[in-house]
Amino acid sequence: MEALKPYEVAIEPTWIDYNGHLRDAYYGVAFSLAIDDVMDQLGLDADYRARTRGTLYTLEMHCHFLHEVKQSDALRVRCVVLDADAKRILIAGVFERGTDRTVAAVLEAMLLHVIQGEPTKSAPLPAAIADRVEQLKCTAEWPSDWPRSRTLAIRRG
Amino acid sequence: MEALKPYEVAIEPTWIDYNGHLRDAYYGVAFSLAIDDVMDQLGLDADYRARTRGTLYTLEMHCHFLHEVKQSDALRVRCVVLDADAKRILIAGVFERGTDRTVAAVLEAMLLHVIQGEPTKSAPLPAAIADRVEQLKCTAEWPSDWPRSRTLAIRRG
Repeated sequence: MEALKPYEVAIEPTWIDYNGHLRDAYYGVAFSLAIDDVMDQLGLDADYRARTRGTLYTLEMHCHFLHEVKQSDALRVRCVVLDADAKRILIAGVFERGTDRTVAAVLEAMLLHVIQGEPTKSAPLPAAIADRVEQLKCTAEWPSDWPRSRTLAIRRG
Repeated sequence: MEALKPYEVAIEPTWIDYNGHLRDAYYGVAFSLAIDDVMDQLGLDADYRARTRGTLYTLEMHCHFLHEVKQSDALRVRCVVLDADAKRILIAGVFERGTDRTVAAVLEAMLLHVIQGEPTKSAPLPAAIADRVEQLKCTAEWPSDWPRSRTLAIRRG
């Protein structure tokens, strides 16, 4: 099983804000689009969704913004499966900026497999897809300069 | 000092994804726009930014997605100052959906006051604005059904 292919971000002009850089929330949009690309790579694609009404819902997302990104910057998102169980996938997106691949942001999302309906219900991933996710689980150590999600707090003293 | 005015979200058709609901990351975009509105209310507006080169940069953001939002839903973001110090503001956005004000999401952002330049540097908020932020600090207890940011993890057993 090959690693996930990185996602090349096309930065829209409207994603740049009055500070002259990529607006915070558009890192999230880029991550969301990168996750769509991962879904395609896993076989959770439009055909699967139409056939089964199965899809992924996002439960939580955490974003660490480390460096500014300008309209002219090349930007790619490298997605890593941090953990998974029968229904859930915890995925991280490492944002690499420019030719020196400065890590400009690290985002995380907790995804839940559901079958849409009345009501929408969580459901195990199909076995073949669960196997692929399991193989993708990152067992490497997390580099110390890549942050992980945490409680936001002003830590004093 | 009055509380912050809530922000009415105008949901764009392009914010709805293939699942038929507001795409995860566009909750973040709505929160980002609500924070712009808070900046205007605090006096960190376009005039302030042009005059001083001072602005807010987002360091981190955490999103809890609790309920789907459809294109037709009324959606408002009620922003709350959770904490602040000389340079930082920790703000939460409670997403109220529809006339029954179902809490559809809770987002948090850690904001840092900076002066843009070469290089951009963090700087204390002007005293008058720091005073207003201090008055806005939420001292009320956080309702138990409103989540707070945390480490994303698949908790087992």
